[in-house]
Parts: sequence; C-alpha cells; structure tokens
Amino acid sequence: MSFKGKDVISIRDFSKEEIEKILEEAEKMETSLAKNIELNYLKGKILANLFFEPSTRTRLSFASAMQKLGGSVIGFEDITSTSVAKGESLIDTIKTVEKYCDVIVIRHPREGSARLAAEISEKPVINAGDGANQHPTQTILDLYTIKKLKGRIKGLNVALVGDLKYGRVMKSLAYGLAMFEANLTLVSPVGLELPEQTIKEIVEKFDTEIIQTDNILSGLKNADVIYVCRIQKERFEDVYEAEKVQKSFRITSQMLEKTKEEAIILHALPKTVEIEPSIDKTKKAKYFDQVYYGIPVRMAIINLVRP
Amino acid sequence: MSFKGKDVISIRDFSKEEIEKILEEAEKMETSLAKNIELNYLKGKILANLFFEPSTRTRLSFASAMQKLGGSVIGFEDITSTSVAKGESLIDTIKTVEKYCDVIVIRHPREGSARLAAEISEKPVINAGDGANQHPTQTILDLYTIKKLKGRIKGLNVALVGDLKYGRVMKSLAYGLAMFEANLTLVSPVGLELPEQTIKEIVEKFDTEIIQTDNILSGLKNADVIYVCRIQKERFEDVYEAEKVQKSFRITSQMLEKTKEEAIILHALPKTVEIEPSIDKTKKAKYFDQVYYGIPVRMAIINLVRP
Amino acid sequence: MSFKGKDVISIRDFSKEEIEKILEEAEKMETSLAKNIELNYLKGKILANLFFEPSTRTRLSFASAMQKLGGSVIGFEDITSTSVAKGESLIDTIKTVEKYCDVIVIRHPREGSARLAAEISEKPVINAGDGANQHPTQTILDLYTIKKLKGRIKGLNVALVGDLKYGRVMKSLAYGLAMFEANLTLVSPVGLELPEQTIKEIVEKFDTEIIQTDNILSGLKNADVIYVCRIQKERFEDVYEAEKVQKSFRITSQMLEKTKEEAIILHALPKTVEIEPSIDKTKKAKYFDQVYYGIPVRMAIINLVRP
Repeated sequence: MSFKGKDVISIRDFSKEEIEKILEEAEKMETSLAKNIELNYLKGKILANLFFEPSTRTRLSFASAMQKLGGSVIGFEDITSTSVAKGESLIDTIKTVEKYCDVIVIRHPREGSARLAAEISEKPVINAGDGANQHPTQTILDLYTIKKLKGRIKGLNVALVGDLKYGRVMKSLAYGLAMFEANLTLVSPVGLELPEQTIKEIVEKFDTEIIQTDNILSGLKNADVIYVCRIQKERFEDVYEAEKVQKSFRITSQMLEKTKEEAIILHALPKTVEIEPSIDKTKKAKYFDQVYYGIPVRMAIINLVRP
Repeated sequence: MSFKGKDVISIRDFSKEEIEKILEEAEKMETSLAKNIELNYLKGKILANLFFEPSTRTRLSFASAMQKLGGSVIGFEDITSTSVAKGESLIDTIKTVEKYCDVIVIRHPREGSARLAAEISEKPVINAGDGANQHPTQTILDLYTIKKLKGRIKGLNVALVGDLKYGRVMKSLAYGLAMFEANLTLVSPVGLELPEQTIKEIVEKFDTEIIQTDNILSGLKNADVIYVCRIQKERFEDVYEAEKVQKSFRITSQMLEKTKEEAIILHALPKTVEIEPSIDKTKKAKYFDQVYYGIPVRMAIINLVRP
Repeated sequence: MSFKGKDVISIRDFSKEEIEKILEEAEKMETSLAKNIELNYLKGKILANLFFEPSTRTRLSFASAMQKLGGSVIGFEDITSTSVAKGESLIDTIKTVEKYCDVIVIRHPREGSARLAAEISEKPVINAGDGANQHPTQTILDLYTIKKLKGRIKGLNVALVGDLKYGRVMKSLAYGLAMFEANLTLVSPVGLELPEQTIKEIVEKFDTEIIQTDNILSGLKNADVIYVCRIQKERFEDVYEAEKVQKSFRITSQMLEKTKEEAIILHALPKTVEIEPSIDKTKKAKYFDQVYYGIPVRMAIINLVRP
C-alpha cells in the first residue's frame, strides 16, 4: 500500500486499511512531537496553502504540520490579491502553483474544485474543504481523536448532534465512523437530518446501526462520544423557529450531567453558542485535544503523500 | 532565574535583574548575528504571530527573530479571514492556536487581552501591544539601544518628547528608564502629560529624578537621549490648536544644533512629521539602529521563554 | 565578475556576460532541484517580500526560490496592514525592513520605486516590478526558458505579440532578446506598438533585425518563439474597436497550425482570453514550463546577490 503522490480529496477514496495506516503514522508523529524529536522528512520541500476562502484554523494547522516535518510553506488566504482576481482560471492557478511546490493544500468554496485541482496537478493535492462537500483530513483527525481518547472506534455509540444536512464535517464523519463500525445516533432538528442518500450509502456499505432522533436528551443518553456542530440560523425560514431550535440544541452542563460518566464531547470548531462555555472546563470536553490531534494527523498525511 | 515558559505581558512583571539578563542574552544574539553564526535554538519549533490589528513592523520583527533562531512562523494579520470573524471568542482562538505552536506573540486592540491570553495558554505568550496598554518588548529594545549606544543607562538624561498621555511606548519606557536610574525629562504639550498615576508609581518605586516641561527647547538642552513620539491631531478638540502644537513639537535640525554634541534621537517608528526628514542623515539620528536592535532583543526573549 | 550585494533593478544594468553567468547558475540550480539535492546556501538568511501591490505568482515564486535555498521569508502583500497605511514614507519602510532581512524583493506600483529602494538600502534589492517600468527577473527567466527549450537564443525568430506599448514585460524582453542577437518580429495592434525610443535604443546598441507588423498571421509565420501578452480593453477609446482588436489578436489553434512545426508559445501569465484554452494541451504551449524555470532563475539571482 503506497500513498506516494496520492491525492486526498474525499474520505470515500480511502479503504479502511488505508485510513488505519494513516492513523498508525499519526501515532508515530505524535510520539515524535511528545519526545521533541526533530523531524526532517520534508526538508527542502514546499507546501502550498491555497485558501480561496478564509480558514485560519485549517490553514495554520497545515502550516504547522508541514513545518514540524522540516518543510516550508507558501500560499495565500485572500483571493483579492491573487491572479484569480485578474481573471485567471483555477486550472491555470493550479498549473502555475504546482511548479512552485511539492504538495498542494486547497480550500475552495466551489464543490468539486479540489477534485479538479487533483486531476490537473502532478503534485499531490489535499482537500482542505470544497464548499459543503468534503474535508477529509478533518474526518481522519476525528477518527484519530476518538481512537486515542476511547481506545477504539468499533462498537462505540457516537451521537452526531446539530445540523447534519448542511454540515460538511458530519456527512464525512458519519461515513468514516460507519466504516470503523461505530453505532451512530443522528440527533438533528426536523428538516436538518443527515441526507437520506448518505444514510442509504452507509447502511449498504457497512455493518452499522443507525438511530435517528430529534430529541437531544434521548440522543445523548447512551453516547460514548458526542460530536456537536453548529446550527445556522439562516437555514430556517422562520427566525423564531430558528432561535427555538438553536436553543434546544445547545449543549448545557445540565444536559451533560445526564450523559455517561465517560462520555466525551467533540466539535470541529470554531464553536459559537452550541456548547455552553462552562463545559470547556469539564473533563468531558475534549475539543481542544481534538485540535491538537490535527497536527500529527496532518503530518502523517503530508508525509505519506509526499512525492 | 529561569524564564522558561514565562509570559512577557508588561515591563512591570520583570525585575531589574531579569531585564539585565535579557539585555545580556540580546548582546550574545547580536554577536552571533554579526559573526554570521547560524543559530538553531528554535529548530523544529513554531511561533504563532497573532495580529488582531495590523502592525507590519512588529510582526516582521518577531518573524525575523524567530527564523534567525532556526524556528518557523505561522500566523495571521487580518482578522477578517479568521475564525474570530465567524464569532469565535478570543479564549477559543488561543486554546486552538496554542496547539499549533510553541510560543505565541499577540497584538490585540483590547487592553488586557494579552494577559487574558497568557492565563489561558499553556505556551508562553509575548505581548506585542494590547491597545494603549503595554508593549514590553519595545521597552526592552529601547533600553538595549540606549545601553549599546551610550554605554550605560544609569545617570543619563533622557528626554521623552511628545504625547506622553496616550503613547503606549512612553509610559512603559518611563518606567523602564526609572528602574535603570536614568533621569527623566518629560516634554509634552499641556494636556498630554504623562499620567500622574504613572509618575507617582515611578517616584515611589525608584530613585529617579523627574523634570516636567512643555517647553521643548529647554527640555532637549541637557538630554543625552531624546526619545520622540507622535502627537496625534485627533487628541485635540481644536484643530488649529492641534496643528500649532504639532508644529512646535516637531524636531528640526535647528533645534538639534542646540542639543548636546553626543545626544542621540530615538523613535519607536513609524514616524510621520514629528522629526524633520533631513535629521535622518545626522549622526544623532539612531532610530534605524534602534530598529535593528529589535532583532537580537526579540531573539533573546523568544529563546529565554521557549518551553 | 561579482554579484555580491548587487541590486537587480533593470535588465539594462546587466551586461551580456553577467546575464550569461545568471543563466549558468540557474542551470546548476535546476540540476540540484531535479536531483533532489538539498541546498543550504541561504540557511539562516531572510528574504523580505515587500509587495506594495498584489502579485501572488511573483510573490510565491520568490518565496519558493528562497526556501529551496534553505532560507526563510518575511513580508507583506497588502499595504492596508502596513505602516505605509499610517503615513510612513517608502524610505522609512525600506530603512526599517532592511534591518530585518538579508535580501529585499520589492513590487511597487510607482515607477522608479525599486531604484529608490536600492539607493537607500544596504541590502541587495531585487525589483519584482515597479509600475509599467521594469521586471528584470521575468526577462531573465524568459531568456532562460528560450535557451532551454530551443538550445540557443542567437538567430532565433522571436515574435512579440500583443500590447507592446504598455506591457512592462515586453519592453524589457525586446531589449534582452536583442542583446542575445535574436531577430525580433513585433506584432501589435496599431497604436500599441513598442515605443520608438525602445526600438531606437535596441537598434543602436545591438546588432539585431526588427520587423514590425499589425498582421498577426504574417507575424507568426516564421517565428521560432511566439511570446504573447494581454491586450487590455481599457487602452482603447472605442470599446468596439477594443473588442475587435482583442479578438483578432487572440491566438487560436487554427492560427497555430500555420506556424512552424517546432515553434513554442510563451506567456508571462496570468493569461485570460488571448490564448485559446485548447492550446494548453498542444506541445507548442510552453508557458507552464516557463513558470517552472522562474524557480531556478530566481534561486540563481538570490544566491548570486546575497551578501
């Protein structure tokens, strides 16, 4: 199994064995970081961070991972100062930037753009989010986080909570969790359920149990892992309805007390109102550990695909 | 005396001995730079340059210092492209970014924000300016500059000239100079004097002589060091009054001729009209040397606090 | 012949021998890149990328070149977040930034600004474009590309196609090509011819043949190299006239079939409508190779001028 030169566009492009390989590599990276071992796998190599829409978190995470591997970073985060603003096509931008670098990371508002970039580029392309579509490194780091914190993924009860219809992260994560045989509880407001097509795909492909509910308390009761995402007001036609739903889907300390003793809460961040700030200090809150795990996971991915 | 992991938020957090230690380390850094000795103290480490308000000069200075130490830099300088723009709290931003880096440098428009960041973060935090409050690395580099160029600080007559009421740099510098037993002449327009509270604090804590005047010529007469800052028009209610004061507090070559033969002029830069451009070429103008000293001083600070 | 500390402001500052030396060095750099040899010539050194107007392509190209040499990069690309926005003069910005770095790269909208920067700075300054004036590293990489792809420059028929009046790239390139004894065919719409002054200078200085035409088909017929640039609508008073000219100066596959078998097409990029996209896939299209050659050429230049 060789990753050399491989593009990372969607979690669906990877077999379970391949993801396991990435998780293993990430484990090694984490050990090196913890032991302060200086890595030089990417010495003399350049990663291009092409952010056609802003995302400080993901951009800095990739930059940090590349530099922790001994490599360097170029890029942009604001297309108003790019050739794109002069009318250049995405194809030409990719054909140009690939000459300057060894690995491309791309975030773009248009779905399918990362796949297009990968088809054009001779250098490996890592999708850092293409519109509402895919964000595979987030899913892999989520799986890594769960495995690290709970010891396994198989057989865990994972509650996915919030807007499962539009959330890019949730659709990919549901797929990844099912692949690793977790049991899924999908907790979303009416109208923001995980698309039927995604559920059908998962059920057909994997041997997984799926429960759906719009009752947050019952959804959280048996969860080992509670993965929360934002509910965006603008998804609702009625602003009052929106605020009511937002409030009832907010995780409070009170709710948390009714969850399993060993349950953990994750979130792809940034969070706004969907988790009560006081929860940050509880031992269940693990989203900042999750942020950290992004580094070894992205280091592993970059190191595996480097030409 | 260990600096490891220490935050650098205000000059007031440091004893004289600690500042002397930083100045000594900076001296060593300067020697290494001059001898072209490649340093690797921060190899494999990452500094996060978090600029919530723009400051090219300070941002580039920290980036240069970190890279001269063999380290790497990540960061942002425009919050419109950050998670902050998506409603994330400063607390969450810090808790996230600290996972990506080894040292945090923060500039933020709100006073106290750097202290808050330091309380949250497990990684050392260096304040690169929090509103009108503190900018401690500027003060330390100012002290270093004076010591380098005049051989000592103790007993020197230092004139602080301009808006001493709102200037962040001046309040901290007055404190630092007093700690090192310089004599202070505070030269400011009526209404823009150094706050009484600052003067009281200095006089109570240190054995220093303070003279106050709004007459610039008499203020400069005996100065060994003339430290100039901007007078901002918008501080005045009356625009004519503002322009009059601005003009009378502008350092001209003519004024300069009446100062001591060996006097030097410093400025935190950027300067606009407060120093006549022709002065740049005189041997008294030392503000660009001062810029340079920012590098070894920031190298010393980063190297001392690194975990 | 020493380049150490030399500024790179205009192609006219270089003798043919000096440019040949750069081309030779670039060849060595290209070999190192191809063989994956890690270079450390600029280890511990810092390049300042000062972009007073946006240019992702050139900025990333210099950043990549510097990092491939083992060096680091600081800089800005948006003057709204710089001290310039606070009213600082270009002189002060340069005098400041040169203290933070070892080599300066500057792009500035005002003609002559790079020369001014070079006069102020003690560190070598490389002009990355000053308004409509000069962009010498582009010309050198163009010469390198032609030499690489055609084996020589002398005696080649080179057609320069498009707006030769305002195109910064074309004026410098015509000069460089003449220096290396290429034959020039200048193909431009009426009113957008290469300035007479430039032609006169070239003819007086070099032993070169110049043909001028506004007929694109006849202009391309004998060309070994076809170098295309944009025709900007806003250069015309009459918008219909503009569109007519733009259309007739667009290179189509049909036109291409009538050119020499071995002809190549180059472009400084970004391109918009002036080359039919289907041409990208033909073997004559070499503009993305040209992009790549920018890296070894800029590596060579940085390495030669470094202090």
